[in-house]
Amino acid sequence: MSGAAKTDDLLARFREGDRWACGRLITLAENRDPGFPDLLAQVWDGVGAAWRTGVTGPPGVGKSTLVNALAGHLADQGRSVGVLAVDPTSPFSGGALLGDRIRMTSAEERRDDVFVRSMATRGSLGGLAQAAPDACDVLDAFGTAEVIVETVGVGQAEWDVAGACDTVVVVLHPHGGDGVQFLKAGILEQADLFVINKADLPGADKAHAELADALSYRAAGSEGAWEPPILLTVATDGTGVAEAASALEAHRAWLERSGAKDTARAAKLEERVRRGVEEEVLHRLWERGSAELHAALSNGSRVPHAVVDELVEKLGEGGPQS
Amino acid sequence: MSGAAKTDDLLARFREGDRWACGRLITLAENRDPGFPDLLAQVWDGVGAAWRTGVTGPPGVGKSTLVNALAGHLADQGRSVGVLAVDPTSPFSGGALLGDRIRMTSAEERRDDVFVRSMATRGSLGGLAQAAPDACDVLDAFGTAEVIVETVGVGQAEWDVAGACDTVVVVLHPHGGDGVQFLKAGILEQADLFVINKADLPGADKAHAELADALSYRAAGSEGAWEPPILLTVATDGTGVAEAASALEAHRAWLERSGAKDTARAAKLEERVRRGVEEEVLHRLWERGSAELHAALSNGSRVPHAVVDELVEKLGEGGPQS
Repeated sequence: MSGAAKTDDLLARFREGDRWACGRLITLAENRDPGFPDLLAQVWDGVGAAWRTGVTGPPGVGKSTLVNALAGHLADQGRSVGVLAVDPTSPFSGGALLGDRIRMTSAEERRDDVFVRSMATRGSLGGLAQAAPDACDVLDAFGTAEVIVETVGVGQAEWDVAGACDTVVVVLHPHGGDGVQFLKAGILEQADLFVINKADLPGADKAHAELADALSYRAAGSEGAWEPPILLTVATDGTGVAEAASALEAHRAWLERSGAKDTARAAKLEERVRRGVEEEVLHRLWERGSAELHAALSNGSRVPHAVVDELVEKLGEGGPQS
Repeated sequence: MSGAAKTDDLLARFREGDRWACGRLITLAENRDPGFPDLLAQVWDGVGAAWRTGVTGPPGVGKSTLVNALAGHLADQGRSVGVLAVDPTSPFSGGALLGDRIRMTSAEERRDDVFVRSMATRGSLGGLAQAAPDACDVLDAFGTAEVIVETVGVGQAEWDVAGACDTVVVVLHPHGGDGVQFLKAGILEQADLFVINKADLPGADKAHAELADALSYRAAGSEGAWEPPILLTVATDGTGVAEAASALEAHRAWLERSGAKDTARAAKLEERVRRGVEEEVLHRLWERGSAELHAALSNGSRVPHAVVDELVEKLGEGGPQS
């Protein structure tokens, strides 16, 4: 088949609900394939109906297990569910993460009626923030009602990925001090729902109380603002999972009722485009500017600011696309 | 006094060892004052002798207490010590962190012979990555032999700040699972030294074993490469602090003996300049491009990639400085 015929075939299969085709489109998004935007454009009409839930939190809190349980619960209710497990490539190690992914995609924990896809992005952290929403769009256009994005770890890039979703769930340990500390570290305003998982471990009640206390310092919202609930779950045996699903549903209902959904989606789209522009501008900048960077640095010992000024003037001249 | 006379006076006092003048220069760095680079240039000859140690790790591990103890230990040995406690402004809350800073700067914990400065950067996370090394330069030019940079929290920006130092110390909880998870999240290659603080709590030995095991998976270095030691401390009563200081000294000696110091410093300077250029280019980009961003977004529902392309072409034309 020619390239165009292949593309038509892929899209035809995608529209027929072929999971392989859906997975293939996600791979193209993941690889930042130059042909992906045109493919997405052809199914763009179908994007927007899915509800996107981002699940994040520190490592080791049982996010994978909780997401499995939530996905199963939603599927039992007859919803079509897609899970994206987003693996950031470490900026330091250059490799994907170990262990967790292998465990979480094991057959016994996953169900046939839940579409599960692990995504890793090689290269820049920016790539992750771009590719994950692209993959959500694919699942959305595929007709998936519930898209759950699960992130690993605690970096800025992961908050960004989760924060691009409609509902942001932060999962925490039952040793509460951490939770409060993480809150202080800036995730207060980001979360729509808190889950203290492994709530059968000692300290869960204390963690709940401390978190509630920390949340009470949150700047008072306007009348009718959403107040993030704190739920206790034991994902391994399903305790609290139905309640967590109800809380997700309540947040969605609130967003739709209050009209905040469209505003929030517009703001998130703006942020996505802004990042996309920045990534491309910087890519072009260093494509032509790396040699000048090294030349400027080897030109004697000067305050870094002087080197920066020199480079901005030099590299700015041609503009990012010269 | 005129502006120039004021500047001369400030520099004269700085050169005389006046702590107020040193603090004032750090404030100018923190505020990204346009006059700061010229001031720094005038004392730039004196920059380079200080040893910079970055201390980072998840919240709640006792970094402040450990840094206090280390600073005191170094001061007891007759070294001049400066501590920068770097408070990132949360990208979400827009405010500085609570609690810890107040506690850590309390008089009873700090000594007169240690220069302590808390730094908060308003606005962009990029600002933090720029202002913290600037403040280190100020302390360095001031004649401080040991500069310790302590970060709060676990974000990318904080790894960046700590990673810009000569020696990077990662402090971890004695509940080891977290440590290993954090390692997986990408800090393996970043750390020169691991400290498990609060080692009197149960689990410290297990945490040590797990961490050592995780480190053994680290890609084998070349002959004579630095192998990050793992130390156990109880910072509150000083246990292990002298050993931690010795390990810091050993890392420094290794860097100097192996010749890796100059290579590492050059790479870190390059990264600093690269970030500075990117920050300025993006600042200029959005200064003139925000209106076009909003116009492009309101122009119908299109795949984000099409909007990005349109903006890159439009905004690229004039170059970042038009």
